[in-house]
Amino acid sequence: MKKIGVALLGLGTVGGGTYEILTKNREYFIKTQGIDVEVMHVLERNTKRAEELGVPLGIVSTDIENVLNNDDIKIVAEFFGGIEPARTFLLKALEKGKSIVTANKELYSKHWHEFEAVAAKTGAGLYFEASCVGGVPIIRTIEEGMQGNRIEELKGIINGTTNFILSSMDEEGASYSDALKRAQVLGYAEFDPTADVEGFDAAYKLSILSSLAYHKRIPVDKIYREGISKIQIEDLNTAKDLGYTLKLLAISKNKGDSLEARVSPVFVPSSHPLAAVKGSFNAVYLKGDSVGDIMLYGRGAGALPTGSAIVSDILYAARQSEHRRYPFMLKDEDVNISNDFTSKYYIRVAALDEEGTLGKIANVFGKRNINIDVVLQKQPRSRENVPIIFVTGKAKESLMQKAVSEIKQLSGVREVVSLIRVEE
Amino acid sequence: MKKIGVALLGLGTVGGGTYEILTKNREYFIKTQGIDVEVMHVLERNTKRAEELGVPLGIVSTDIENVLNNDDIKIVAEFFGGIEPARTFLLKALEKGKSIVTANKELYSKHWHEFEAVAAKTGAGLYFEASCVGGVPIIRTIEEGMQGNRIEELKGIINGTTNFILSSMDEEGASYSDALKRAQVLGYAEFDPTADVEGFDAAYKLSILSSLAYHKRIPVDKIYREGISKIQIEDLNTAKDLGYTLKLLAISKNKGDSLEARVSPVFVPSSHPLAAVKGSFNAVYLKGDSVGDIMLYGRGAGALPTGSAIVSDILYAARQSEHRRYPFMLKDEDVNISNDFTSKYYIRVAALDEEGTLGKIANVFGKRNINIDVVLQKQPRSRENVPIIFVTGKAKESLMQKAVSEIKQLSGVREVVSLIRVEE
Repeated sequence: MKKIGVALLGLGTVGGGTYEILTKNREYFIKTQGIDVEVMHVLERNTKRAEELGVPLGIVSTDIENVLNNDDIKIVAEFFGGIEPARTFLLKALEKGKSIVTANKELYSKHWHEFEAVAAKTGAGLYFEASCVGGVPIIRTIEEGMQGNRIEELKGIINGTTNFILSSMDEEGASYSDALKRAQVLGYAEFDPTADVEGFDAAYKLSILSSLAYHKRIPVDKIYREGISKIQIEDLNTAKDLGYTLKLLAISKNKGDSLEARVSPVFVPSSHPLAAVKGSFNAVYLKGDSVGDIMLYGRGAGALPTGSAIVSDILYAARQSEHRRYPFMLKDEDVNISNDFTSKYYIRVAALDEEGTLGKIANVFGKRNINIDVVLQKQPRSRENVPIIFVTGKAKESLMQKAVSEIKQLSGVREVVSLIRVEE
Repeated sequence: MKKIGVALLGLGTVGGGTYEILTKNREYFIKTQGIDVEVMHVLERNTKRAEELGVPLGIVSTDIENVLNNDDIKIVAEFFGGIEPARTFLLKALEKGKSIVTANKELYSKHWHEFEAVAAKTGAGLYFEASCVGGVPIIRTIEEGMQGNRIEELKGIINGTTNFILSSMDEEGASYSDALKRAQVLGYAEFDPTADVEGFDAAYKLSILSSLAYHKRIPVDKIYREGISKIQIEDLNTAKDLGYTLKLLAISKNKGDSLEARVSPVFVPSSHPLAAVKGSFNAVYLKGDSVGDIMLYGRGAGALPTGSAIVSDILYAARQSEHRRYPFMLKDEDVNISNDFTSKYYIRVAALDEEGTLGKIANVFGKRNINIDVVLQKQPRSRENVPIIFVTGKAKESLMQKAVSEIKQLSGVREVVSLIRVEE
């Protein structure tokens, strides 16, 4: 039987959940995994919280040196959130040869290359299953399930807050701001919801997952990002009639000599499995050259689901004789990340009540060889706002932007209200 | 870099797919996994097939001794299908300390305990990801992703043939026999479809997955099994109106001191993610005590998807310093597997056109405290066949069987046509 000493940095929601799973299941892990995991130190200022969780106060302190200088601690799991002091503490742990486990997607996506540089020297392991899609074993699936494949594409609903908001809008016809308020009341959204609703959180995760899937470093700031805060309920309703459901999708595609990586609201066919992912659930679609399409579905957040991923990483790390290395994170060469991706588009125009406007718009698409799959002219709201909706065939983003600029200049057009990608 | 010699026993569909992946991606695996996999021997009688696949004939033979006596071959992957000679060859390989990889669910589910007994002595590894749900990494998810959980429940669509047939019936209103014929023409069903349509194939997989999930040996013959060959299109249509979709589900539940394990047609709510799994796709739902519900979805069969799982096992096996052991497979003690499970039920009765029959039936349920959630009396087909449909609340199987026996005896009842479980 292997004995593994672990330190927990912080006892917040997920840290507490992890402590709970590790203590409650300690005997079970000995029996089923042959591994005895002992929590040997906890960094936490709030001793009341530690007492509530039943942590012996003798192993609680606020001094990282107590972790770094204990040679029996082989794994350090971090729950501070934010960048500092988590980054510095984890780098120090890696220098000592201790493996790290984290759910901190912002930290990990921005500093993975620094962690790898130190860990590659000391042989320590990097474990970050909990940073993406909570308890769903998406990292393990890429590393240990699909490793026989070249991964071609990844599409995911990887932010529960925005999926909860979009599901509320879709199911209850709530406006964006009402749905957001409800999400805040229920604890699904933060008081400042920016990181979620503007797609930052999803971009952190997409950076991690795509780097892993394509064996190339994909920095967060190279990812195209667009949030859901400007989404209007009218477009959800119209698209529903056309057979589409709106999701905030993180998408990356390996195009051989270039990569696409983007987070944005996207219409998917309502019959697509991703359309059935509702509320705060997450799901990720992966396409491998041999296995074809695989989808994983589950809870992307929460104390116990995320704790489950942390504990999985600890048990998995304990079994490795040699930790996995990520040499591609250390390469300085720029990966060619193209944001001029190809997509179908949903466009809503507010037209004036004039003859021939629809034809003029169609003409703008036509001369650029952009096919029109659907045209829908809706009941005028006023003489100044006749909604005309188009769903186009596939076109390059740059070409579509040019078409939109030209449409805006047309005499019969008041505004191009919405431009939303459609993914089939 | 690790070098690993592999032998392939058989070059059928999956064996050929595996050879294709291993050769086409050999350099890719060296680069991304640090593992060089070399196919060192192939057992195949059909040298034409070997030539077509580009296998050098110098490594092709029909003599297992060529595999057993080559110390550089560390992993033996079997593609013969059936029980013998696969069983004997794999046991011999394990005796020599070679790890085995197989997609053969019948063989593995029936003889896992024999393989484990030998492998535990020699330290060889057992790898069987490809035996369940093709390329979907369900085994890895249980072993390396959910190992921090006690798994409470497993529910899956794990047979593509029956799901294809039921999807055709549901979507096109085809009868069972027409849908089966179409599946045979398209190559989704065998000429003799018994193993699929009567649930044997699903039972093999359920035995493997459940043993792994609950750390207890669950023999195939202890699994309750019921196929789809008696399903009538009328029940699919009626249930669709009630919001249910029919699936052949493999279900197991850990009830603490007992286990439930069954394969049978089951109605699931049409809004349930499993209802959206169509055609030959597979999906498995797992419930862990920490992570909650997780679902995996993908192709359950085919040369490249199954080959992907075989290759994943080979690469994974090559990384292990010590192979996982399954001591629970060696225990003789009987696991308490109860088939008196609790479920909701859908019941269709063919009643005579008489007053009061519905009430009499309701009475049979009432006196056993079985709740009735839905009653539906449909347009009479004749005076001898007035269809009455009930959906009950939860009841023990044994209690429901008694109720059905009594209903059959009622004067106004011609027949209890259908009795199908409902899972929510």
